[in-house]
Amino acid sequence: MPAPVLHFWFDFASTYSYLAAMRIGPLADKAEVQVRFRPFLLGPIFKAQGWTTSPFNLYPAKGHNMWRDLERSCADLKLPFRRPEPFPQNSLLAARAALAALDEPWGEDFCRALFRAEFADGRRIDEATVAGDVLAALNINPEPVLSAAQSDAIKTRLRTQTDEAQRLGVFGAPSFTTADGELFGGNDRLEPALRWAKAVAERS
Amino acid sequence: MPAPVLHFWFDFASTYSYLAAMRIGPLADKAEVQVRFRPFLLGPIFKAQGWTTSPFNLYPAKGHNMWRDLERSCADLKLPFRRPEPFPQNSLLAARAALAALDEPWGEDFCRALFRAEFADGRRIDEATVAGDVLAALNINPEPVLSAAQSDAIKTRLRTQTDEAQRLGVFGAPSFTTADGELFGGNDRLEPALRWAKAVAERS
Repeated sequence: MPAPVLHFWFDFASTYSYLAAMRIGPLADKAEVQVRFRPFLLGPIFKAQGWTTSPFNLYPAKGHNMWRDLERSCADLKLPFRRPEPFPQNSLLAARAALAALDEPWGEDFCRALFRAEFADGRRIDEATVAGDVLAALNINPEPVLSAAQSDAIKTRLRTQTDEAQRLGVFGAPSFTTADGELFGGNDRLEPALRWAKAVAERS
Repeated sequence: MPAPVLHFWFDFASTYSYLAAMRIGPLADKAEVQVRFRPFLLGPIFKAQGWTTSPFNLYPAKGHNMWRDLERSCADLKLPFRRPEPFPQNSLLAARAALAALDEPWGEDFCRALFRAEFADGRRIDEATVAGDVLAALNINPEPVLSAAQSDAIKTRLRTQTDEAQRLGVFGAPSFTTADGELFGGNDRLEPALRWAKAVAERS
């Protein structure tokens, strides 16, 4: 039986991507599913739907409730939460740094720590100093990661990854995709997505 | 301790309201929470957000995935599913008939049976004959319910109920509200909403 794999598509600016990033490790271990972290940019995907900012900003009733829901959900999950200002953050640098970091064994730790910096500590993820502080706190030398994040190779990989998300039908974040092309949208779909990934591997 | 109460706001045209209507009874019993069925119309609420139809029609990638997610969710829940045509159905008559029916002890059974007619049997809920068939199958004389559904009293009550939903911040369906004014949006929030309703009653 091939190892079950679930692709985890996220944008660092996305509130529910924070919850999914914090939940996915232990749940995937328990489900015996391997997770691939796939940072991408929601901006081009929102733009294709005619949105120039987050739908939570465009639709005030929805946005108002999202912040309250996030407070409640974080309390349930015992996760710290602080509303980022501004929202959404520009996640371009974060996504590029994450792509570079994910070539290393500590890449996922970096992603989680960057989400925490943004959503628990209220730091701005568009500032290179923040990514640098997060790396340093993990005992990683920031300079090579931040240089790689500005390389043409990583810039191209992020564009390719965002294109792939769009091709797979991703319309928001977080999203989860499986080897057989199923797409699960939203933090609430993490558990069924893991079950699906497992079932696909068992059938093949 | 006052009995915990959860208000269940739904529109008969709404796909995830079908799932919530089918799930809420046993879950509320287990949580020892009383549920109030509150049919309303999403149309005026969508219109206030600038939408002239369901966002699932306006945003094709989102809509495409919703139908697939509904198939998967119904399979998980062992619920029958058939995609309504057209979508969304006009739910005005259904909401009015439900309001009249909910004055009777069999009102919630009628709501569930109407959802099944639409989402399992592919019937059109804008036709009085369908509501009549559903009532007859429950051994209820259809005529008084269908007459009441066309009365000014019920028409006014439905407008009032929709206004109340909007005032409570409802932006989609299903939604759940508690005595202390918390709003939970979406079928996925049914379980936390029940827990919240219970906790509110325990604190008071």
